[in-house]
Amino acid sequence: MMIIMKSNATEEQIEHVIQHIYEAGLRPHLSRGVETTVIGAIGETHTIPTERFECLPGVEAVRRITHPFKLASRQFHPRSSLVTLDGFQVGGEGIAIIAGPCSVESRTQIIETAHAVKEAGACALRGGVFKPRTSPYSFQGLGEEGLEYLAEARAQTGLPIVVEIMSHSQLPLMETFVDVLQVGARNMQNFDLLRAIGKSQTPVLLKRGLSATIEEWLMSAEYILAGGNEQVMLCERGIRTFETATRNTTDINAIPVLKHLTHLPVLLDPSHSTGHADYVAAIARAAIAAGADGLLVEVHPDPAHALSDGKQSLTPEQFAEMVEEVRKIAQIFGRHLVQPAAERALYGR
Amino acid sequence: MMIIMKSNATEEQIEHVIQHIYEAGLRPHLSRGVETTVIGAIGETHTIPTERFECLPGVEAVRRITHPFKLASRQFHPRSSLVTLDGFQVGGEGIAIIAGPCSVESRTQIIETAHAVKEAGACALRGGVFKPRTSPYSFQGLGEEGLEYLAEARAQTGLPIVVEIMSHSQLPLMETFVDVLQVGARNMQNFDLLRAIGKSQTPVLLKRGLSATIEEWLMSAEYILAGGNEQVMLCERGIRTFETATRNTTDINAIPVLKHLTHLPVLLDPSHSTGHADYVAAIARAAIAAGADGLLVEVHPDPAHALSDGKQSLTPEQFAEMVEEVRKIAQIFGRHLVQPAAERALYGR
Amino acid sequence: MMIIMKSNATEEQIEHVIQHIYEAGLRPHLSRGVETTVIGAIGETHTIPTERFECLPGVEAVRRITHPFKLASRQFHPRSSLVTLDGFQVGGEGIAIIAGPCSVESRTQIIETAHAVKEAGACALRGGVFKPRTSPYSFQGLGEEGLEYLAEARAQTGLPIVVEIMSHSQLPLMETFVDVLQVGARNMQNFDLLRAIGKSQTPVLLKRGLSATIEEWLMSAEYILAGGNEQVMLCERGIRTFETATRNTTDINAIPVLKHLTHLPVLLDPSHSTGHADYVAAIARAAIAAGADGLLVEVHPDPAHALSDGKQSLTPEQFAEMVEEVRKIAQIFGRHLVQPAAERALYGR
Amino acid sequence: MMIIMKSNATEEQIEHVIQHIYEAGLRPHLSRGVETTVIGAIGETHTIPTERFECLPGVEAVRRITHPFKLASRQFHPRSSLVTLDGFQVGGEGIAIIAGPCSVESRTQIIETAHAVKEAGACALRGGVFKPRTSPYSFQGLGEEGLEYLAEARAQTGLPIVVEIMSHSQLPLMETFVDVLQVGARNMQNFDLLRAIGKSQTPVLLKRGLSATIEEWLMSAEYILAGGNEQVMLCERGIRTFETATRNTTDINAIPVLKHLTHLPVLLDPSHSTGHADYVAAIARAAIAAGADGLLVEVHPDPAHALSDGKQSLTPEQFAEMVEEVRKIAQIFGRHLVQPAAERALYGR
Repeated sequence: MMIIMKSNATEEQIEHVIQHIYEAGLRPHLSRGVETTVIGAIGETHTIPTERFECLPGVEAVRRITHPFKLASRQFHPRSSLVTLDGFQVGGEGIAIIAGPCSVESRTQIIETAHAVKEAGACALRGGVFKPRTSPYSFQGLGEEGLEYLAEARAQTGLPIVVEIMSHSQLPLMETFVDVLQVGARNMQNFDLLRAIGKSQTPVLLKRGLSATIEEWLMSAEYILAGGNEQVMLCERGIRTFETATRNTTDINAIPVLKHLTHLPVLLDPSHSTGHADYVAAIARAAIAAGADGLLVEVHPDPAHALSDGKQSLTPEQFAEMVEEVRKIAQIFGRHLVQPAAERALYGR
Repeated sequence: MMIIMKSNATEEQIEHVIQHIYEAGLRPHLSRGVETTVIGAIGETHTIPTERFECLPGVEAVRRITHPFKLASRQFHPRSSLVTLDGFQVGGEGIAIIAGPCSVESRTQIIETAHAVKEAGACALRGGVFKPRTSPYSFQGLGEEGLEYLAEARAQTGLPIVVEIMSHSQLPLMETFVDVLQVGARNMQNFDLLRAIGKSQTPVLLKRGLSATIEEWLMSAEYILAGGNEQVMLCERGIRTFETATRNTTDINAIPVLKHLTHLPVLLDPSHSTGHADYVAAIARAAIAAGADGLLVEVHPDPAHALSDGKQSLTPEQFAEMVEEVRKIAQIFGRHLVQPAAERALYGR
Repeated sequence: MMIIMKSNATEEQIEHVIQHIYEAGLRPHLSRGVETTVIGAIGETHTIPTERFECLPGVEAVRRITHPFKLASRQFHPRSSLVTLDGFQVGGEGIAIIAGPCSVESRTQIIETAHAVKEAGACALRGGVFKPRTSPYSFQGLGEEGLEYLAEARAQTGLPIVVEIMSHSQLPLMETFVDVLQVGARNMQNFDLLRAIGKSQTPVLLKRGLSATIEEWLMSAEYILAGGNEQVMLCERGIRTFETATRNTTDINAIPVLKHLTHLPVLLDPSHSTGHADYVAAIARAAIAAGADGLLVEVHPDPAHALSDGKQSLTPEQFAEMVEEVRKIAQIFGRHLVQPAAERALYGR
Repeated sequence: MMIIMKSNATEEQIEHVIQHIYEAGLRPHLSRGVETTVIGAIGETHTIPTERFECLPGVEAVRRITHPFKLASRQFHPRSSLVTLDGFQVGGEGIAIIAGPCSVESRTQIIETAHAVKEAGACALRGGVFKPRTSPYSFQGLGEEGLEYLAEARAQTGLPIVVEIMSHSQLPLMETFVDVLQVGARNMQNFDLLRAIGKSQTPVLLKRGLSATIEEWLMSAEYILAGGNEQVMLCERGIRTFETATRNTTDINAIPVLKHLTHLPVLLDPSHSTGHADYVAAIARAAIAAGADGLLVEVHPDPAHALSDGKQSLTPEQFAEMVEEVRKIAQIFGRHLVQPAAERALYGR
């Protein structure tokens, strides 16, 4: 951590900062420049907030040299983490394609979709039952009933299920039913939820907030890791920018940046990051070409009648085509699409 | 709502859309252009999501003509709403200045601050006890102990207290202690929390999300209003942009825009919207000049030792100076700073 | 174009708008809703600015139904345009890789780089001689001397050269030397330059402005096309967002969006769009996987000593590796890397 | 400047960086931390680009401690600069209100407007004759004819005239006619133009680019100052963000930030920064309350028939009302509205 003093800082103020550095368990290192003095604070700075020094008298600014996350950092954990689901792993050489409707709407809809996406090559089924909707007048999800339909879809297809959790009070119910807890963009900094999930043993898919920096996103992962849950996957889903031609702007740069900064698996959701079915396949291909470990894709048997996000949902046929393109790109880089053991068992018989 | 058809849409697809318009309880109105056909959907469209039409075959785009909020809209409620606190009102001719530390850190700190801000002209006391912190390693707040100190500060000064609620499960505790429930930027779209608060009778201060549009913000207010709680105040606290010279970018435009769109009172938090104590007074003055109904300001008796946000906190002296400037601007426009009845009683004796 | 009236608009105001619609050579179409009246303006609206109606009394807002560009639109020109350079074409099945240093720094540097990038598979050579630098104290380019070195590099390698033009007064000089005029991000809305280039016969590579929407970018292309120069290529180079982990945010969505909206060839510059050599190859692969027609890549024989943009420049070895990866992705989609005829001739002998 | 080494940097790489620091005329200062080594580069670093060190082997990142501008910096020029126009000064205690139409449309229109804005309290007249328009199909300005009308308006009213220059080749013409050269947002980084203007003696009003950081904006001012022209005024005109309720987002924070960083006068353009006449007065008041030295406001005698920007133009009556409000706020802070000497002379007789 570098503490930059104001150009008119007094010797007393410098002394005072140095004393605070010692109190924080760090070592000071003084560097007097032409216009200003900079004081390094050396030691284990990850867990020390910059604000500890920012408002001391005479301080102009405080800048971190190292990142404020540690458990999520590849620097201290060089090997890529693997998240194990039903007999397959996310984060290794395999590519995981998770697919399904935005919302579970009916028993028929989710079971039909589950079979279709499995056929096409998905390794897990997504489906929302509690929906975070901008408008109080929009469809809010089927709730527990939806979880039961998902469980049935899993029983029939062997696909593990991925469901969004919206509140820490839903955790007991969710843990009974789901294989992966999805944390949505709007809850990326719902710290009560992150803390609760940190104490769970269920794998987590942590989506990026609409305007979260990569560093803030990794700090949210750090909350879960610090709680003891190491099964964390990240999912880029587009950020908010000035461009309105698409629903969000896919931050494709985030893929190589994250592969550099963290050991956690990185997925991309081309449905939300574009908002248009017409653009989903192109961005899915781009994600895998850029090095993503998987995809989260909205598929609906009849997008025109979807109760939410129909505009960005692929039909099963479009999805199957997308999977084939993705599979070819994966192969170039020596990767393959993963499959659930249960499915392999079902079909291996 | 205008439904814009693709240039190659068939007559059948147009028919199909028209049928869906009737099913939604609306009336269609067809307009055939040179390149495309546009179908108006006329009626009570506020509560009908655009996605209901967006993915029908042949549809290019759907655009709203009217806003998707109704209870929050000034169109249906032309008179400005007043939120009544302890004997004074926010949203009328008065200007409400709410001040206090980012976090309650100790009994002494909050009581000392309460007296200081009351002296200087504040009408209510703010202080966080559950803190949403980006890092799991930062100070997370005193919890219930902090609420007790706040209650004591209120008893001594007569200032109503404003405290951030982070989760719907905190509501019973909060309702016992606080006068205003603050919803923070990171929870603006925590819909479970919004729904819970909608059923409360306690007034709410709803902060804008870091990257929330004004429309999304009003939709979050709509959640609370739709639940039955009409005591909603809005608080602009800066948005996230590319500029890094300040912590956030104060969206000062939001003040006149909101005064035009909604009847709810509008406050501004110059502490978070700038992130630097040096800039707080200038932005506080700007807010009142632009027509805001009040301010939310961080004040700390010793910013250099604050456990959070010290960099943007004013000292009581700086705050008193800011209040005087604001008072003069308010007077130009025939407005005045409000005071709590309790305080008036205490001092009126 | 839809003209939305205020809810309290009078009959007279509606009449007045209708009259203006006729004066603009359009046909009105009235639609009376519950809360408001909408008037369609039907006809050739591309060249009519919305402001013509926006400030008429009683008008709330004006919204376009169709895009404000026509010559650039795929709707009126469904077949993809091809830009012909030295015996090869950009925009068809081929993929064009343009590479070279940010700035021409010396005769040796550019000639050495030209040979290296040709070897690796580039079809054209880039190099700046007039540099748009944020600081007046930075290296500003070699000027005409640089153009002569580039011409020599072309003579030796057969690679056509791509050079940024910064002002319309440089056009005569540029036309003598270069094969492609590059318009940089900061000049995307330098309309005097666009008009001048519109009258040239030299092909143009139009980069996207840092905060330009896709529509504004296509309007800038429209300026050039309207002037008579049809040889326009677009180049995405990252947009400015709140994220600071990379220099810019690559808008990968722009690739499929542009392929949908326009017939012009679309390239991507992964060097500027990431700002880090470590991330360039991943984003180059993503661009081609998403459907881009080519790449613009910074390559420097010794990035550590580059006078500009060394941080984001690839070494010739890194570039060669990137080209091989890109080639494999191109092949999946039935595409190949193009080569200049001159080169083919040189080597065909 | 702090050069942060990679955690695995070798002693040789550190030595190499130190050597480069000496070559740049700076002094190195080594600080070895737990995870990394930081090397300070001490001396006159303003004119040394960070890229000089960024791509040396073993370097992770380079961060400036001091700003990269010097002539524009208040640190080296603590006293506020005054720009002298026709007998009055901008940047001191006075407040300068510059007003007029977006475009000069006719002799009558500009002369009528000039009289009206002078009456209301403006000290200078604005009016565009070469217009930077997004669409090639929009009105592009009257050109030299417009300059003649402006000159006549000045002769009649004594108001100095402020006109946008779009290209360095227009400089000789402009210098003949105008009192202040306005550089528009889209040309803020047209470096050829900045260099040309730097050699002029005519005062300059430099608007902020749509997505320019405050630092980049001051670097553009630095270009002009470095050329020898010290008569530079800055004008905030809104930045581009995700919010679409207004045309741009007024960065009101920029006012106190600039007053802190630079000695140059700071104005604000509430017409462009909001895009709606209804919001202009509120933002004009906010600007003056925040400490701005002046305003640039669009006024049109008949906004409904303006050829450009009618939507955001005030009528003379609305403008007069706005001036009165602004005058009262200015008085609170001991400031007053300035008037041209010529006008004083005309009326003083």
